[in-house]
Amino acid sequence: MQEYIIIVAGGSGSRMQSDLPKQFLPLHDKAILLHTIDRFLSYNPDIRIIICCPRDFLNYTKELLSKHQYPNTIEVVEGGATRFHSVKNGLNVIENMSSLVGVHDAARPLVSKETIARCYRTALEKGNAIPVIGLNESLRKVEGERNEAQDRSAFRIVQTPQCFTTALLKEAFLQEYSPLFTDDASVLEKAGYTIHLTEGNTENIKITVPADLLLAEVLLKNKE
Amino acid sequence: MQEYIIIVAGGSGSRMQSDLPKQFLPLHDKAILLHTIDRFLSYNPDIRIIICCPRDFLNYTKELLSKHQYPNTIEVVEGGATRFHSVKNGLNVIENMSSLVGVHDAARPLVSKETIARCYRTALEKGNAIPVIGLNESLRKVEGERNEAQDRSAFRIVQTPQCFTTALLKEAFLQEYSPLFTDDASVLEKAGYTIHLTEGNTENIKITVPADLLLAEVLLKNKE
Repeated sequence: MQEYIIIVAGGSGSRMQSDLPKQFLPLHDKAILLHTIDRFLSYNPDIRIIICCPRDFLNYTKELLSKHQYPNTIEVVEGGATRFHSVKNGLNVIENMSSLVGVHDAARPLVSKETIARCYRTALEKGNAIPVIGLNESLRKVEGERNEAQDRSAFRIVQTPQCFTTALLKEAFLQEYSPLFTDDASVLEKAGYTIHLTEGNTENIKITVPADLLLAEVLLKNKE
Repeated sequence: MQEYIIIVAGGSGSRMQSDLPKQFLPLHDKAILLHTIDRFLSYNPDIRIIICCPRDFLNYTKELLSKHQYPNTIEVVEGGATRFHSVKNGLNVIENMSSLVGVHDAARPLVSKETIARCYRTALEKGNAIPVIGLNESLRKVEGERNEAQDRSAFRIVQTPQCFTTALLKEAFLQEYSPLFTDDASVLEKAGYTIHLTEGNTENIKITVPADLLLAEVLLKNKE
């Protein structure tokens, strides 16, 4: 079954102390975004890639891909005001309803091939799948002036790619936007579906602050 | 007011792929534990330090401290079967009830002076304080076969040092052990007290897997 991946590159550089959106910052030898693309091409050379990025960086992204000789089948579409709107723009490009689609953060260049494979495989079997990992630290919940210890073993940190049968995700994205849509699974869940969890990989960090980029450098070198 | 810090060095090396408990693994120029001690001495040179460590490593720890010429006022006591029992052994050493006591993970060598100061200051004002940070990633809660998206803005990751007035913590540790005691705040909370949150620092990671040690190296070099 044809597989698609929507790579959401909407992030700004503000928390990375940079004017360049973080997905374009160099990691080892090239932009973070290119490492992310590499992971999906190495999982499946025939995967169809759709990149959602800010309007001001559409040409920048296209030139980056061309300069590094990436396949010209990669589509670059304009992102929206929120992740929800960006993914919706990406989904509009997909016409093949009998396919699988994943959504991945551009700033997660260290997703493993195994994590990607588990997500698409489980989505094929069950309609959807998202990669998660457990917590190493204690967790508290804050409610107004109060806060309370939580049983951390009941919680999971959510990563990407979040994978779905295309028809299902397109249907879920017909809903009206809600600020509670922090990821794609939460959109599907709001539409009444049960979300299926698969195992992520601990290196699959989201680069958010400068220290994350340093860690990604080290993890990448370590892998090589 | 006299300040004490109980450093819990009970961890085994299993998840670090090492026979040596992780607090003794080298970080840059010396054992993780020594970096951790340095942070507290640089915050307050007169702080009284109590290290809880596994029985088989009592002499190893004492020799390490002596070799690196640490103050001979540092006490090394035997840890227990769980963190709760280790902290209890550490508390038994403290006779001064009009003091403040913190409990810190040996495997957090990157706690900032500011985080330590905030915790002791708030504990002095309010009886207790623990450092927390927000989450960068989506969170789900698992209940049996089901799982549900959570509003991550309501959750906090808990770090150490967790600081208390000594009389209060000693009282709380008179309770019978419960497996729900994942940290010291949860022991106090079980005794009916409200926990006060202060700001932690993002670099204050707990070294758990080999990648964490790599990150700690980078963060340490970056600081220098």
